[in-house]
Amino acid sequence: MNPTSLHSLADEPIYGGTPWSLREERWDEAVLGRSESLFALANGHIGMRANLDEGEPHGIPGTYLNGFYETRPLPHAEAGYGYPEDGQTIVNVTNGKVIRLLVDDEPFDLRYGTVIRHTRELDLRAGLLRREVEWTSPAGQTVIVRTTRLVSFVQRAVAAICFEVEPVSEGAQVVLQSELVTNEPMPAQSKDPRAAAALAAPLVGEEHSCYDYRGVLVHRLRASGLRMAAGMDHELGSPGRIDTSIEAWGDIARLTAATELKAGETMRLTKYLAYGWSSRRSMPSVRDQVIAALAAARSTGWDELVADQRAYLDDYWSHADIEIDGDDELQRAVRFAQFQTLQAAARAERRGIGAKGLTGPGYDGHAFWDSETYILPVLTYTVPKAAGDAIRWRHSTLDRARTRAQELGLKGAAFPWRTISGEECSGYWPAGTAAFHLAADIAAAAERYRTMTGDAEFEREIGLELLVETARMWQSLGHHDHEGDFRIDGVTGPDEYSAIADNNTFTNLMAQRNLRWAAAAVERHPDLAALLDVSHDEVTAWLTAADHMLIPFDDHLQIYQQASNFTHHEVWDFEATPADHYPLMLHHPYFELYRTQVIKQADLVLALYLCGDHFTPEEKERNFAYYEAITVRDSSLSATVQAIIAAEVGHLELAYDYFAETALIDFEDLAGNTTDGLHVASMAGAWLTAVAGFGGMRDHEGELSFSPRLPPALDRLAFKLHVRGTSLRVEIRQSGVTYTLLEGEELELTHEGERVVVTADVPKHRELRSLPNVAPALQPAGRAPIPRAEHHRLSQQALSAHAHAESGTSEH
Amino acid sequence: MNPTSLHSLADEPIYGGTPWSLREERWDEAVLGRSESLFALANGHIGMRANLDEGEPHGIPGTYLNGFYETRPLPHAEAGYGYPEDGQTIVNVTNGKVIRLLVDDEPFDLRYGTVIRHTRELDLRAGLLRREVEWTSPAGQTVIVRTTRLVSFVQRAVAAICFEVEPVSEGAQVVLQSELVTNEPMPAQSKDPRAAAALAAPLVGEEHSCYDYRGVLVHRLRASGLRMAAGMDHELGSPGRIDTSIEAWGDIARLTAATELKAGETMRLTKYLAYGWSSRRSMPSVRDQVIAALAAARSTGWDELVADQRAYLDDYWSHADIEIDGDDELQRAVRFAQFQTLQAAARAERRGIGAKGLTGPGYDGHAFWDSETYILPVLTYTVPKAAGDAIRWRHSTLDRARTRAQELGLKGAAFPWRTISGEECSGYWPAGTAAFHLAADIAAAAERYRTMTGDAEFEREIGLELLVETARMWQSLGHHDHEGDFRIDGVTGPDEYSAIADNNTFTNLMAQRNLRWAAAAVERHPDLAALLDVSHDEVTAWLTAADHMLIPFDDHLQIYQQASNFTHHEVWDFEATPADHYPLMLHHPYFELYRTQVIKQADLVLALYLCGDHFTPEEKERNFAYYEAITVRDSSLSATVQAIIAAEVGHLELAYDYFAETALIDFEDLAGNTTDGLHVASMAGAWLTAVAGFGGMRDHEGELSFSPRLPPALDRLAFKLHVRGTSLRVEIRQSGVTYTLLEGEELELTHEGERVVVTADVPKHRELRSLPNVAPALQPAGRAPIPRAEHHRLSQQALSAHAHAESGTSEH
Repeated sequence: MNPTSLHSLADEPIYGGTPWSLREERWDEAVLGRSESLFALANGHIGMRANLDEGEPHGIPGTYLNGFYETRPLPHAEAGYGYPEDGQTIVNVTNGKVIRLLVDDEPFDLRYGTVIRHTRELDLRAGLLRREVEWTSPAGQTVIVRTTRLVSFVQRAVAAICFEVEPVSEGAQVVLQSELVTNEPMPAQSKDPRAAAALAAPLVGEEHSCYDYRGVLVHRLRASGLRMAAGMDHELGSPGRIDTSIEAWGDIARLTAATELKAGETMRLTKYLAYGWSSRRSMPSVRDQVIAALAAARSTGWDELVADQRAYLDDYWSHADIEIDGDDELQRAVRFAQFQTLQAAARAERRGIGAKGLTGPGYDGHAFWDSETYILPVLTYTVPKAAGDAIRWRHSTLDRARTRAQELGLKGAAFPWRTISGEECSGYWPAGTAAFHLAADIAAAAERYRTMTGDAEFEREIGLELLVETARMWQSLGHHDHEGDFRIDGVTGPDEYSAIADNNTFTNLMAQRNLRWAAAAVERHPDLAALLDVSHDEVTAWLTAADHMLIPFDDHLQIYQQASNFTHHEVWDFEATPADHYPLMLHHPYFELYRTQVIKQADLVLALYLCGDHFTPEEKERNFAYYEAITVRDSSLSATVQAIIAAEVGHLELAYDYFAETALIDFEDLAGNTTDGLHVASMAGAWLTAVAGFGGMRDHEGELSFSPRLPPALDRLAFKLHVRGTSLRVEIRQSGVTYTLLEGEELELTHEGERVVVTADVPKHRELRSLPNVAPALQPAGRAPIPRAEHHRLSQQALSAHAHAESGTSEH
Repeated sequence: MNPTSLHSLADEPIYGGTPWSLREERWDEAVLGRSESLFALANGHIGMRANLDEGEPHGIPGTYLNGFYETRPLPHAEAGYGYPEDGQTIVNVTNGKVIRLLVDDEPFDLRYGTVIRHTRELDLRAGLLRREVEWTSPAGQTVIVRTTRLVSFVQRAVAAICFEVEPVSEGAQVVLQSELVTNEPMPAQSKDPRAAAALAAPLVGEEHSCYDYRGVLVHRLRASGLRMAAGMDHELGSPGRIDTSIEAWGDIARLTAATELKAGETMRLTKYLAYGWSSRRSMPSVRDQVIAALAAARSTGWDELVADQRAYLDDYWSHADIEIDGDDELQRAVRFAQFQTLQAAARAERRGIGAKGLTGPGYDGHAFWDSETYILPVLTYTVPKAAGDAIRWRHSTLDRARTRAQELGLKGAAFPWRTISGEECSGYWPAGTAAFHLAADIAAAAERYRTMTGDAEFEREIGLELLVETARMWQSLGHHDHEGDFRIDGVTGPDEYSAIADNNTFTNLMAQRNLRWAAAAVERHPDLAALLDVSHDEVTAWLTAADHMLIPFDDHLQIYQQASNFTHHEVWDFEATPADHYPLMLHHPYFELYRTQVIKQADLVLALYLCGDHFTPEEKERNFAYYEAITVRDSSLSATVQAIIAAEVGHLELAYDYFAETALIDFEDLAGNTTDGLHVASMAGAWLTAVAGFGGMRDHEGELSFSPRLPPALDRLAFKLHVRGTSLRVEIRQSGVTYTLLEGEELELTHEGERVVVTADVPKHRELRSLPNVAPALQPAGRAPIPRAEHHRLSQQALSAHAHAESGTSEH
């Protein structure tokens, strides 16, 4: 190839696809790590990065089991009481993806020879990752390799790979090595403190075995003691004779299969993988579980696994699909985002949902508040069972949260800012433990789940206890000052560029709700509440605190304060801040950030959304304008919320720009760290932007309401929601909105303040409200979002720049 | 001995002495570490803990050179921009104190055989540590050992030991081994994060040599690269023949001397020690410096070294002695405190003054703000040259402080919260870097030095630049809000149980002064100011900021707030806090402390003292009462300041109790960590309590004023001050105060608001002001100071408890 053709190729987007698939169009080692995250497969229990079948080259090798973590010491330059001594880190478990290929004794490796063709496609309806490569070895032998990979939504412990190889022009000897590999060497740790700490060879072998085409490895983590087993079994097919051997050692199991193929002939290997882990079960129990899962998978067979996967997803999409007319790329991005949200949670089954799902080692695999605040709302309306499971996981950590509350001098429960198993793992308390809003975020997720799913058992089973223990925490955290106001001092709100502030408005408004929800739940279940020792006086104290909750307001500016005194702080000098100083936290000390008016991520604006019924429309407009001008969006959690309020206030084009930023964050690697895993909260945020932003959907106090609007660029936006056993479809066009009940008999909702009862098969049509003209909202100098139309061009520039720069310079 | 006699012995105080000496009356291994700190010798350059001559047993072996530190990585669980990556730790250098003794082949070791008598006496006039032991070996041989140790104030690089041994009842063969020992094994690191990190074998040998009776070792620190040399030379005397040998290896040099002594005969060894270190000079240069210092010391000879030491101290006491009639123990404690303050600083000569002086490894040997705020005022009035040197040390770190300011987004200079060489070594910024009051503390020390010493060169040489660069820092740190108030947000004041607060009153008042002092200095030196690029506009901005400085006030309570909103926070539940939860920081998270009204150490009350001219007497009384009730004194820096304001407001008995707490802190190990080194700021605080507390001395704006008063228990308090080249004596009796000029022609001062001019040989007598009755000030439950009368009893109880408890559980 001459340089000109190379250049024109580089101008083509690497990622494309259809409205139902994401495609990698060619081989480019520069995006290796990003692609591993984008094309990752997971079911909420098992996660597999899209590492190449042949193992190398790789960005970050990654196979994860939800909840399976190693502990490591957390060092502190100056220790303090209550600092966690140990952290938890998700580990790269035994890799079952590896299928090495020798073609006439030359290893199949894209770094050598010539790649004629390389495509990968993530099929969002089939739930499959398909790869096709045409490659000429350095010796001149050309082969086509086709692989299909799945992580089963139906058989939770199972993944499978179908691998085919075909010589093109002349025959070849082909050897496949299908492996389980434990303790893979990991790339050097990033300088970015937020990338996961690398852990060298954490797994200690307990047993290895092989039999027929099956290999099994059992390991235990050195420090945490958690045990895991991985197994593989195989089916082989070839026109000719196949010589096979199977072997297993401490950290490797290997099936070797050799055959002679004529040109055009295909050898096919089907690999079934099974994983299991436990903190308590014995080695034989965990081992045998995996062998049984393998037997079940082989019995099901590849074709049936593929069919089951499709059926699972057909059901999902029929109740959850978002349709967008007028922006094909966003259509794809939103479906991808939904798919990844599903993959992060579907079969998590009482394990947490990490900030990166199971797509990479970023944030050590920890779950944060965005699980409850961004991901669970989406699951509640699309996969309600998964939402319930995630809340049950939080509940299962309640004992640890009670212990932590005691350690902090509080009553009730203090949940950890970041964790895998429920212990606090934050090494920096001002932006960790102090962010108490997490408690109300959990309460809100529980309350939304209760009111919107109709899960009758939930509240008695766990909901009441969560509300009571969080309310107790708030009651002990705050106090009434001499004017009677209930203050919550010295806490950190969602904006991590402020910390240890008094009366964070978002926190106080959410705490207020938490207290009232708890009181109402106690009233609904006096018998259970009595078992939790809730007294009448206690409930009265909750309600009194809620009624007197201090919400700081700036009379001069006539806006709410993010926290007491916030608006008296100096405004950050945005004009003097060069573009390469963002994200600010990597170029300025916390000290400087905390004391000035500069906002990392929506905080007061998040209150305008989640506590929207507290504010008038005029207040929303005025407060959005003020905070928009000082919000730099150094967190990927921000654009979603800004989009939602921008849409509500009437800035539809701005909302659309933020929509694109949210949905495209990983396609375009806007945060510079997609290699470490996907931004699952942004994936959920794409759904939220569509439904809560343009759909104007709110669920304050269990009332479902809509205020639909479309950005000018779109012709149509439609989405579907599970609500209390019904399935609702909402279709928005510029000409109006149609509410259709797909399942169920009747659903009451509010459209622009009007009560509407939708009944089976009788769609309701309403006009869109005409929006008032609003003055344009301004962002800090240089921090306006990329206009939607410019995304592709900028993304390509960033890609070129990226190849020359270090990765991992940005943030959550 | 029978148990009864043991018991009665334990009831006797271990420490006693005369008004001019501190004595250890008997051998008790339980106080080994404390005694090592109490009897430490230093001259500001070399420090030697009072480790036993024979090397063992020891609490913490310690020989220190001021400014000689090793670097070590500072680990952070979650890193952040601007966090220091390396810390600095003072190291235990080559130990020259060791003189081992063999008596008929049995090593002299107090843990074996029988100690008949063991006394040590620190002679505060002679500047000598004398020890006398009568010991019977396990084999039954009794010897008397007499040693005298000095660290010379006159020959800065030199220490010396005179060692005598005498068999008592029958003759004995005696062998002495006089050594230099490098990289001594250190005891395991305390769990207390504030104790210094132990550093294993940090010194790498560069050269060793021996010649005649002289041995020299040169070493270099592995990480910091600093180089040191230690040398010893000897004189020997004995009635009989002495066999000697000298040897040197990498980490040891040893003179061995053997002789036969009859009963009553004495062998005498005089050991001269010299130390030198450098970050830049070559190995031969540092080595030869030490050999030359040894030659000078031998040439001077032991008797002359002792005489010079006495002459130096006679001069010191004649200008600095504090006399107390009515409390012999306090008299001794105050003189001891003065002596230790002198030892920490006398010959530091442009090195910092660590929080522990050179008496132990606590706080890693770092200097903090208490150097300028507690120690320098004492030095300014007693050893002005040492005060000037210490300020010159700060000035010498200005380039690093400018670099740090840039890193923090500030102009001017940002000095490090804790350091040895000028780099920030604080591993926890909310209670480190954020404590910007340090800048004004330095400015105040410089301004006090300038106005009170009459050092004519000082301001042009360094004072102006310090004021300008700190003023620039304040100007950039604060901002005018929309009402024009100048706010300083997000900083930490002296009270470390609050952090990252807006408008800390102490900080803002001190910054206000700093800005005005800088403006005045610029006016005095326009030529030099121009060289520093100071413009008229810049000075105007300083003065505008100062004039509009925001000082937060609570209108409801009618008191000043420690910081904005402080008085709206919940008051700590003192009643519910058990005694063993103090110090609170070891039993409660910062999170809990920061958000409540609980004060570790005087903060607003420190403002009442250092910015006393800002407050009316009524305000002082009201504010003292408020803050006294929530101050727990978990810092040793607190009692001094509370004493001073208690005295001013009229709580003379309370002031007297705090006086005792301050002066006796290390005698009685009140903080539980005297083993790690003396609390030098408390030593200075004893002086401050006498002079500023009972003398009522203030020096606001360079005006010397007095408001003397005596606690009922005292008959007389007298002190002497160097003021602008004069020497003033102030003698307070219940009947009145007498101001006498000992040197100089004339001094103007203020007595109770009355202008008084004291001239040579004409003492001025004034009556004491009768104090108003004030309501008793209350401390938090359980935190009242020990009444003076109960000190001895409690101290003995604590001693017994201490022997069974871990040490190092308390604080600075």
